[in-house]
Amino acid sequence: MSVKWIDGGVTAPQGFRAAGIHVGVKTHNPDKRDLALIASDAECGAAAVFTKNIVKAAPVLVTREHLANGKLRAVIANSGNANACAPNGETNARNMCEAAAAALGISADDVAVASTGVIGQELPAEKITSAVPELARALSYDGSADAAAAIMTTDTVKKEFALEVQIGGKTVKIGGIAKGSGMIHPNMGTMLAFVTTDCAVSGGMLSALVKSAAGESFNRISVDGDTSTNDTCIVLANGLACNAEITEPGADCELLGDALRALCVRLATAMAADGEGATHLVTCTVSNAETEDKAETIAKSVISSSLVKAAFFGADANWGRILCAMGYSGADFDPERVDVAFRSAAGAVAVCASGRGLPFDEARAKTILTEHDVEVLIDLHEQTAPGECGECTCWGCDMTYDYVKINGDYRT
Amino acid sequence: MSVKWIDGGVTAPQGFRAAGIHVGVKTHNPDKRDLALIASDAECGAAAVFTKNIVKAAPVLVTREHLANGKLRAVIANSGNANACAPNGETNARNMCEAAAAALGISADDVAVASTGVIGQELPAEKITSAVPELARALSYDGSADAAAAIMTTDTVKKEFALEVQIGGKTVKIGGIAKGSGMIHPNMGTMLAFVTTDCAVSGGMLSALVKSAAGESFNRISVDGDTSTNDTCIVLANGLACNAEITEPGADCELLGDALRALCVRLATAMAADGEGATHLVTCTVSNAETEDKAETIAKSVISSSLVKAAFFGADANWGRILCAMGYSGADFDPERVDVAFRSAAGAVAVCASGRGLPFDEARAKTILTEHDVEVLIDLHEQTAPGECGECTCWGCDMTYDYVKINGDYRT
Repeated sequence: MSVKWIDGGVTAPQGFRAAGIHVGVKTHNPDKRDLALIASDAECGAAAVFTKNIVKAAPVLVTREHLANGKLRAVIANSGNANACAPNGETNARNMCEAAAAALGISADDVAVASTGVIGQELPAEKITSAVPELARALSYDGSADAAAAIMTTDTVKKEFALEVQIGGKTVKIGGIAKGSGMIHPNMGTMLAFVTTDCAVSGGMLSALVKSAAGESFNRISVDGDTSTNDTCIVLANGLACNAEITEPGADCELLGDALRALCVRLATAMAADGEGATHLVTCTVSNAETEDKAETIAKSVISSSLVKAAFFGADANWGRILCAMGYSGADFDPERVDVAFRSAAGAVAVCASGRGLPFDEARAKTILTEHDVEVLIDLHEQTAPGECGECTCWGCDMTYDYVKINGDYRT
Repeated sequence: MSVKWIDGGVTAPQGFRAAGIHVGVKTHNPDKRDLALIASDAECGAAAVFTKNIVKAAPVLVTREHLANGKLRAVIANSGNANACAPNGETNARNMCEAAAAALGISADDVAVASTGVIGQELPAEKITSAVPELARALSYDGSADAAAAIMTTDTVKKEFALEVQIGGKTVKIGGIAKGSGMIHPNMGTMLAFVTTDCAVSGGMLSALVKSAAGESFNRISVDGDTSTNDTCIVLANGLACNAEITEPGADCELLGDALRALCVRLATAMAADGEGATHLVTCTVSNAETEDKAETIAKSVISSSLVKAAFFGADANWGRILCAMGYSGADFDPERVDVAFRSAAGAVAVCASGRGLPFDEARAKTILTEHDVEVLIDLHEQTAPGECGECTCWGCDMTYDYVKINGDYRT
């Protein structure tokens, strides 16, 4: 696959406009945008994956309903209030869709809705719906950055990426925006990701590709082990690239799937790197496992461990905690065969071979782990036949004073 | 059951001596005791539960072997080094047992061994074994506090409790010491607990009672979600109380079981309250669940959530995070029936009824949550018939700057 990264986000593909404005949901941050709209000029095939938390926010339930026919034209999303466990949640979520539909001249069924922020407080729906006409007027073909800003909560940087790839002789573009920061854990965190593409692809294929791409990106990151009530990843495909519609598995489908996964991984790693209070992006790769599932279970356990995360904050090569987190992951493996190494732009250091500590230069290890992007490389040595090696990479961040600070008084 | 709390710990029951001295394993803390010994004057029936982490420290493996015949006479334990994933681990663990056995004139098979501290570094076994004769000379019938001090790592307070209970017309005493602090999570944390009793009880019954007591105490606490490689809870019963030996279920067995559980709960809550950096003991009780298992799954998820823990640090009545943690626990329940309240010595406040936020006085909630001991009360309203209510209490602590500080540079 050869994808080319390009500027922009959800408005990079043809026929998508976006906007983000301030309407006052984030009462503590009066200067920040808090309402986003993404709209397609043409009807879109659409697919989504949602939180597995059984406490689901109202917008999740409403969006799932609107997606039943596999079609959407727009997404409206607010930050500052999650509309979860909140009075009049469903009514308020529906009202957001209806306001967007009225302003765009489309059906409310064609609008997805998402919210992120505090749980349990009633959404100030009037503030939102009365501002939707202004929001719709602000839509533009380069409005992606404003929309990306409007879905941020404790995020410190906008997450916005786009790429292009050749499919069926046509240039297809895929773009996305996302927010993460806290309550981020495998099986979706408090994350919203909106992805657009001008690729022509059938609803069924899109649905399968989204599930697979999310599984190998957003579901492989963790900030704090908390799976939120609101997690949503929606993909809209409007077909304006005029490639031959992808309706079945094959070369085109694989190209689209790979490109979609590349975009989602980029959004997901940006979320992990911008985890609440994070000062390091921690990438853990488990290789030579019997199965990819086993490698994933172990890698997730390592990046989710509070003790491992705290050690990375201290740039401490405390590999014992890594073996410990592997050991309680639930995966079955032989500790006596495990090798562990740390790697970053400053070099690599092997710290454990066959389950036992290696002598290593502590000062050099510290230098390696002081880099922003650090890697944990774990080899299970389980490979039995060439080409049968299970491997998986997951992404997390360190645990810092600021994580505690941010979450000690997020609500009040 | 009427138990009477009394002074002391493992030396409160008849015929147990203990000691704790400094031998230099904790190189960073030269003034601290780091080697403990507990010895019984008579042979003991013994039982234990160990970590479920598949990476098990060498002392766990050796102790399990020595317990195969259900008999022990002594326990030797060090802090400062976990002897896990470490070179010569098993040899060093065996050497500790042999040194203790030689000093006590018993068989090495009758000695249990435990270690806690850094993973992956070779145990300074020579320092330990050469000091064992001095340690044995220090044994005394009121040496429990020294032993309790010698197993502490980042613990800030000694955990030492004892009680007495009348069984079969005799006064039976049970005493225990424990260490916890970090890597504490349901299914045993980095916790060591040594419990002694002069009760006469068969090996089979003791084993069942220990499993049950640990399941309802140590396995219901969490500090950070990390299950360590070294967790061990050992109970020694020397029969010197001269009650009729408990060999089967019945009234005496129930009395012993209740007393043992009471002692273990006291040790466990002391561990949770002294979790690394903790400023609050958080007790979560889930009631009116279909089953106790379901109540336990939900309560554990709540006390383990980083976001819930950070909110308690901020004395923030952020009940939305509690519903969220319940929702991803894996337990099936109806969010629309859930009530949540907070309670402490300063009062109680209901914050959520039938899954929706209640208006409440934020200042009063803050006052309630500012107390050291705070409770989360969750009612699932699932009870179907009188007396069939499933209920469970789990214990945790808040997440603070100090947790991160302690664990950011624990090793170096």
